[in-house]
Amino acid sequence: METTTQPATPDGAAYAATDRTVPTRARERATYDRAAVHAILDEAYVCHLGFVRDGAPVVLPTLFGRVGERLYVHGSTGSRPLRMAGSARGDERADPGLPVCLTVTHVDGIVLARSAFHHSLNYRSVVVHGIARQVTDPDEKRTALDALVDHVVPGRSADSRPANAKELAATAVLRLDLDEVSAKMRTGGPNDDPEDMDLPYWSGVVPLRKGYDPLVPSPDLAPGIEVPGYLRDL
Amino acid sequence: METTTQPATPDGAAYAATDRTVPTRARERATYDRAAVHAILDEAYVCHLGFVRDGAPVVLPTLFGRVGERLYVHGSTGSRPLRMAGSARGDERADPGLPVCLTVTHVDGIVLARSAFHHSLNYRSVVVHGIARQVTDPDEKRTALDALVDHVVPGRSADSRPANAKELAATAVLRLDLDEVSAKMRTGGPNDDPEDMDLPYWSGVVPLRKGYDPLVPSPDLAPGIEVPGYLRDL
Repeated sequence: METTTQPATPDGAAYAATDRTVPTRARERATYDRAAVHAILDEAYVCHLGFVRDGAPVVLPTLFGRVGERLYVHGSTGSRPLRMAGSARGDERADPGLPVCLTVTHVDGIVLARSAFHHSLNYRSVVVHGIARQVTDPDEKRTALDALVDHVVPGRSADSRPANAKELAATAVLRLDLDEVSAKMRTGGPNDDPEDMDLPYWSGVVPLRKGYDPLVPSPDLAPGIEVPGYLRDL
Repeated sequence: METTTQPATPDGAAYAATDRTVPTRARERATYDRAAVHAILDEAYVCHLGFVRDGAPVVLPTLFGRVGERLYVHGSTGSRPLRMAGSARGDERADPGLPVCLTVTHVDGIVLARSAFHHSLNYRSVVVHGIARQVTDPDEKRTALDALVDHVVPGRSADSRPANAKELAATAVLRLDLDEVSAKMRTGGPNDDPEDMDLPYWSGVVPLRKGYDPLVPSPDLAPGIEVPGYLRDL
């Protein structure tokens, strides 16, 4: 397998829907638009990565990064999903890969309806199905690790000490191509039944706000180091 | 199976660690304390529910509620995990249940280290392994649906129209007992290597803030309905 060629995925095109990415319910909330999917992914600090171990599901929160149509997760070479994903010797031809489901969710608001039944959340989510494979190409591995750092704070990877050989060797990186992907979202107010509209219950939306509290510098920060611009712009 | 008796789980005791709940890495971040687990669960708006479908993992975000040592998720009787969890006829003796992993994560801060390698997030997460089973007892189902609403806005279930017979029939509820459970958390600043301490990179923590924006009342709210106290107290 060629690991350094970017898959051909024309910008602006939509992902093809599959049996797994068409929801059984609320299909009108689903979208396969690439730009919408990328935006939801890029805004998230963590994903929830699901895999199967001994026949049972495991869901773990983890950092991730995106480079075009590829997602990357990383971990110690000793961690379970990384060990399960393939040969530790990096023989990619023998790597069957690890079937995963990678999900990202933003909760944007609480939807309070007159009826308990119609209570809901406003949210945006992305679900990615696919086979995660260990990255063995050293250049791709470095690119992936930079993307993981820049995913959380854009611009940060260039303003920190890059991984050295020992750290690179201790870190395993998995790649998951964006291929079988869907987004789902809900916006707006409650959808109460017509006969409930005059009930004496407050209804509406509680929007959730996300932001940052003041920076907490390391107490042992070397003198003269100012807060970098990419943090002031957060 | 008796569905209405609460399992005997002494308050304050810890969950027993199992092979699945002892992390392979960073074991010092794990805790099995019931109160700590409950607090992390109760603060979350959604969980990520993992199950296995056709041998592959599926991870979906969903609302949940907690009643003591039981978690509840709900969905349309037509949705995939609900259908997979058991007999639609509610014959619980014949219900093999659905192996699930239910995970909740809060991201509390971005940890910026001098080295790319030591970048991290401060977080609190809970992972629950177990078998989800359909709730067939009508009283337990009502209790579960109230808990789902009150989980998001405490006090709300008593201030909305309860589910009617048709809504109850259209809603399936799954129960997952808190038995095989662990929490994991990271707090504090970056853990840079001693030889990196004088590097000219800003390091520290960017704390994430969560809050609410002003309420958005439904435009068709009946006149004279004031904002309830449980929303003013959010």
